[in-house]
Amino acid sequence: MTLKSDPGNFFEDFVVGDELIHATPRTVTEADVALYTGLTGSRFALYSADTFAQDVGLPSSPIDPLLVFHVVFGKTVPDISLNAVANLGYADGRFLAPVFPGDTLRAVSEVIGIKENSNGKTGVVYIRTHGYNQEDDEVLSYVRWVMINKRDESSPAPEAVIPDLPKAVDPRDLPQRVYEVAEYNFTLAGSPFGFEDYEIGEKIDHIDGVTVEEAEHQIATRLYQNTAKVHFNQYAQRQTPRGKRLIYGGVAISLARSMAFNGLANAAEIIAINAGSHVNPLAAGDTVFAWSEVLDKVDLGDGLGALRLRLVATRNLPCAEFPYKDAEGKYLTDVILDFDYWAAIPNRG
Amino acid sequence: MTLKSDPGNFFEDFVVGDELIHATPRTVTEADVALYTGLTGSRFALYSADTFAQDVGLPSSPIDPLLVFHVVFGKTVPDISLNAVANLGYADGRFLAPVFPGDTLRAVSEVIGIKENSNGKTGVVYIRTHGYNQEDDEVLSYVRWVMINKRDESSPAPEAVIPDLPKAVDPRDLPQRVYEVAEYNFTLAGSPFGFEDYEIGEKIDHIDGVTVEEAEHQIATRLYQNTAKVHFNQYAQRQTPRGKRLIYGGVAISLARSMAFNGLANAAEIIAINAGSHVNPLAAGDTVFAWSEVLDKVDLGDGLGALRLRLVATRNLPCAEFPYKDAEGKYLTDVILDFDYWAAIPNRG
Amino acid sequence: MTLKSDPGNFFEDFVVGDELIHATPRTVTEADVALYTGLTGSRFALYSADTFAQDVGLPSSPIDPLLVFHVVFGKTVPDISLNAVANLGYADGRFLAPVFPGDTLRAVSEVIGIKENSNGKTGVVYIRTHGYNQEDDEVLSYVRWVMINKRDESSPAPEAVIPDLPKAVDPRDLPQRVYEVAEYNFTLAGSPFGFEDYEIGEKIDHIDGVTVEEAEHQIATRLYQNTAKVHFNQYAQRQTPRGKRLIYGGVAISLARSMAFNGLANAAEIIAINAGSHVNPLAAGDTVFAWSEVLDKVDLGDGLGALRLRLVATRNLPCAEFPYKDAEGKYLTDVILDFDYWAAIPNRG
Repeated sequence: MTLKSDPGNFFEDFVVGDELIHATPRTVTEADVALYTGLTGSRFALYSADTFAQDVGLPSSPIDPLLVFHVVFGKTVPDISLNAVANLGYADGRFLAPVFPGDTLRAVSEVIGIKENSNGKTGVVYIRTHGYNQEDDEVLSYVRWVMINKRDESSPAPEAVIPDLPKAVDPRDLPQRVYEVAEYNFTLAGSPFGFEDYEIGEKIDHIDGVTVEEAEHQIATRLYQNTAKVHFNQYAQRQTPRGKRLIYGGVAISLARSMAFNGLANAAEIIAINAGSHVNPLAAGDTVFAWSEVLDKVDLGDGLGALRLRLVATRNLPCAEFPYKDAEGKYLTDVILDFDYWAAIPNRG
Repeated sequence: MTLKSDPGNFFEDFVVGDELIHATPRTVTEADVALYTGLTGSRFALYSADTFAQDVGLPSSPIDPLLVFHVVFGKTVPDISLNAVANLGYADGRFLAPVFPGDTLRAVSEVIGIKENSNGKTGVVYIRTHGYNQEDDEVLSYVRWVMINKRDESSPAPEAVIPDLPKAVDPRDLPQRVYEVAEYNFTLAGSPFGFEDYEIGEKIDHIDGVTVEEAEHQIATRLYQNTAKVHFNQYAQRQTPRGKRLIYGGVAISLARSMAFNGLANAAEIIAINAGSHVNPLAAGDTVFAWSEVLDKVDLGDGLGALRLRLVATRNLPCAEFPYKDAEGKYLTDVILDFDYWAAIPNRG
Repeated sequence: MTLKSDPGNFFEDFVVGDELIHATPRTVTEADVALYTGLTGSRFALYSADTFAQDVGLPSSPIDPLLVFHVVFGKTVPDISLNAVANLGYADGRFLAPVFPGDTLRAVSEVIGIKENSNGKTGVVYIRTHGYNQEDDEVLSYVRWVMINKRDESSPAPEAVIPDLPKAVDPRDLPQRVYEVAEYNFTLAGSPFGFEDYEIGEKIDHIDGVTVEEAEHQIATRLYQNTAKVHFNQYAQRQTPRGKRLIYGGVAISLARSMAFNGLANAAEIIAINAGSHVNPLAAGDTVFAWSEVLDKVDLGDGLGALRLRLVATRNLPCAEFPYKDAEGKYLTDVILDFDYWAAIPNRG
């Protein structure tokens, strides 16, 4: 009689070069869009109104790239991060094709790097994940690295392999986007500011704050079919030093990004993820605030540009003064997220 | 470098005659319907079952008019009530055409009145808002007035303009509704009582009570893309005398109206809003109860009538004795809502 | 003037042979599917991905049978269990035809048994409920029995009628299912184990635990349009010995069943309900765990089999040791659910 339930992989189970075909393909629907709106407060017109998307030449509103990311990420959890200690970083994420309601997403990952930690108890695994739609078009590719417990501290360390990852997606590698920018309605989008109005180094306080409830992050994380135990099991978490459920980092990304509407309403579409760190944990009852900095900008042609943006989120700390790191370069205690991405934005023209 | 995020308008920013084109058009879908059911407990058959709606001649279940109202209202918040002190009243609301899943709603408002308060710190702004679908058909029109902070107490008072508003929508101005009443199934609708069974002055206790949770009102309010700060930011609210997040008044209207199914199951469709006051605040943990009074009734012809109804909601106070006002005409402390509307209801025939 | 709101039926109102046509038909949509995923964490591929369902010959993902059950059950509450003391058991439940998004469900019940309790205050009513789709195809039939308060303790006891109910649905009576099992993808389904891998007597710990929040069970129970007062009204519950809202038993079934994915990923489709008891109450803040036992197995032909499974759920008690009953055969205090059902599962072949 074989053990039927799966306790998840441990560090020893990962071998560089292995491919992981993740279970539970998922048809994303307009219902996921409505739930995403209800759970994050997203207001980007491109993802809110079919008419707005049709005006710029799309068949209907696509699925918000962050929702695509969360669904694809969720598929990988049972195989990769069920026994994770921490999700350490993201790199080289690219949204390669739009996803529409009715599309079915599935995920496949490769182990691209591995390194045991010096304590002999944990190690870091580097994973590249590919998301595909029902036509087998690749819609998303990204790398993340995760700290994972060893099953047995005495098992020998594998040879370390550290992948060479870009600090940011090169502008020449950004996925192409086609918009009929001439038909883009800045008034309905909620801001008069186009690509040419943003300057490198500019910082934007997104003003609003939103308090997170247990039911909200649990519903969101289940919607993404992300099963990591730390998000759901208060009985187990009560026995840890923190004593609380830990909120899925993607919830913080989406809340911060939804607040970023106020200041970046026309930079609706994330086209690449350069880097991301969940630098401190978020718990229910905390209020999330956010600010952005323009790190770079590049003209994509045809009236469209891209902004490279740093999105910083905090807990219980308004962002009028752009809180980030201390004098020694350490993140402030109340900073929870440092997320670096490229977003497409039309020229005012 | 221009300030990119929008702190919202203050009293000085409103000028009578100005038009405000609100951002974030929104495609409403069957997902909004399901979420509305999950968040309010609505059971009106017309909005629950396509077959029921088709039996009376509609192509499918329309969107509940209150959900239409909340979505249109939500669009106006960033321009009108981000800095509001209080939402003071509604008048002359008419649901001019049904909205179906797949329709895209947008909103345009006019400033129709203005009056500075004698304290010099705040003023009242009267707004007429129009909701349109993707065909530019007007689906909803209503007036609300809001108390808004001045940016600068020393700025001069504008000339007062108070619009002339009806105390109730005149029966002759009620939007027409077409039903094949002969095919209306009272059993499936959940009540044997038709238009002829209700008497002016009749009061109905809706019996049930429902306790509101933070996650519920936040998800609902975000679903409507209503961004008013007081609903979401516990960090800021903790520093106010109330110390709590304030629940969007529309959440109370929808909960009370959903409970009103028990007693008014056939008066499913709100066709006009006469007046409405959020007379005391509602907070998470409170239990909402509701009762109704028949204020008027009018035969609409073709087997359909309309009831003018007062819907009163309370917090933590059952409604068997129809709690309302005290001897001096002041609302009781635990009354939270006084909402006056017209609903269509078929004759038993 | 007739009382318009309905206080619900009492024990005296039930007569053996009576038919109850329940109100509020309900069109179930892909939005209900997404909400069910968000509220339960369901991951069965058959209900998650249209492509997966199409590979085995279905037009699209059907609605999870438990969601169908909850919606049909919800319809019956206003007529049957509004004044129920306890939901005592289920028997002879069969899912007779698949339900797809867009179908409209309605419910009709018959009173098939009745027995006053010896205390003279309550009685037990046995009900058979039929769920139909918009084509009047029967999609579900089940029996439940409920303890209901008498309106008047002095009213005479009716003649007792106890229906003859099967302890389990006979394998020959199991609804037929047609799958192209050859095209079933075990990798995407999330487990390599097929019908032949499970042994009678085998027990499976589903490992995970999930903490339930008030907002979650309220949203779920309202989605099912289940109006039983004990789930929603904290004002009233505060005055009871428990002091808390009671969570709808179906929420526990669905959470436990969603966790059962881990160990039973290919036994996605419940085809019959043999029995079920909510043996202890579940409240918000409790963490649900679950385990399963294989009670029986039967080959259905064409590469498909059925497992008869006992699903046991607990509160705040991990299930590695399969907690169930004490030495005297009494359920342990922290066991909340004992649910006995048949699920279809493909052969590995």
